[in-house]
Amino acid sequence: MIDLYTAATPNGWKASVALEEMGLDYTVHSINLMQGEQKKPEFLALNPNGRIPVIVDGDANGTIVFESGAIMIYLAEKTGQFLPESGPARSQVLQWLMFQIGGVGPMMGQANVFHRYLEERIPTAIDRYQNEVRRLFTVLDSHLTDFEYLAGDYSIADMANWCWVRTYEWSGVSVDGLEHLQRWKNSIEARPAARRGVEVPNKIDKEALLKGAKSVVTR
Amino acid sequence: MIDLYTAATPNGWKASVALEEMGLDYTVHSINLMQGEQKKPEFLALNPNGRIPVIVDGDANGTIVFESGAIMIYLAEKTGQFLPESGPARSQVLQWLMFQIGGVGPMMGQANVFHRYLEERIPTAIDRYQNEVRRLFTVLDSHLTDFEYLAGDYSIADMANWCWVRTYEWSGVSVDGLEHLQRWKNSIEARPAARRGVEVPNKIDKEALLKGAKSVVTR
Repeated sequence: MIDLYTAATPNGWKASVALEEMGLDYTVHSINLMQGEQKKPEFLALNPNGRIPVIVDGDANGTIVFESGAIMIYLAEKTGQFLPESGPARSQVLQWLMFQIGGVGPMMGQANVFHRYLEERIPTAIDRYQNEVRRLFTVLDSHLTDFEYLAGDYSIADMANWCWVRTYEWSGVSVDGLEHLQRWKNSIEARPAARRGVEVPNKIDKEALLKGAKSVVTR
Repeated sequence: MIDLYTAATPNGWKASVALEEMGLDYTVHSINLMQGEQKKPEFLALNPNGRIPVIVDGDANGTIVFESGAIMIYLAEKTGQFLPESGPARSQVLQWLMFQIGGVGPMMGQANVFHRYLEERIPTAIDRYQNEVRRLFTVLDSHLTDFEYLAGDYSIADMANWCWVRTYEWSGVSVDGLEHLQRWKNSIEARPAARRGVEVPNKIDKEALLKGAKSVVTR
């Protein structure tokens, strides 16, 4: 059994979507970011960076994995799914995964900070990040003109990018005119496992509460 | 033979340090970022995102790899060096690599933008990124209190983080009081291969010019 420590954020969903797509059993532990649970000693013992998600793999001597990208690779290699074992096809998945980790994720994150969270309005910073996100979306859209998915078959690269791209409205960035990106986004949204993944931890919390589960920290 | 398209930036150095550490032969093609060479059609054919570094592996049917993190994993798996093949040790390297790709790199990059490049002074943004970089440095320092390197033996995770951390002054962030981080940084700086790597492309350009090489685009 795998324990997942997470919250309802794009990086959190990357882990839960991967777990759902791979058909793995897991227990959800919801971390209340507003209450700073991710900075408490018991969480820092799992991830010294104080960030969700983290998994603890009880089937592998309690191996702890933090960083959502590393979790996706770990689970893909554990199950032999959604990441080819070798060759150019493998590298292409990792390239588009990195595109999300180093690009789409951080830039949407900064757009959210300046567009949503800060009271101070700083037009230079808002424009900078919204423009960069739109540019990255355009790169995805152009690539998806020729390909159904980002790197061969549906992979962890699609899951990772989708978990962020689907929140475009929160970042205040439009996907208008990016028809290939929209087609790709809709096709992943139609996957039951992906849809279940992005309902974690909230929906599962509710179900767990009804069942009286104790291992689930409620939000 | 591997072709490396790069420029003198931390992400560029990640590729050249890995190539040097792994003892691979490669030809450097310097991309002039100031002249926008990374946005020209011939470069976009290699990386649609218009970013250095990119490698083309002539020993693997011209496999193209972009995104510095994906390049490091590709080279590590190609040579069987600096990334364990399996188990928790492998995942730990990938976790600390991701820590750089999604954290140290983007945050130092934003600190550089607001501290160095923008004429407009925006204290909120400068403070935000410099404080976050210092926090990430502190996470590294704490971890390095107990470990010589970030994840077991010296690995691509160390190379990746070092290529960024060494530029702390450019980001306007101090490493004062972070003695474990400084010890780690100095120990990597003492490695001849790492030192050669961070002289690419500038020093190699000069040598190539003296030899009359044509494959090297000079800066």
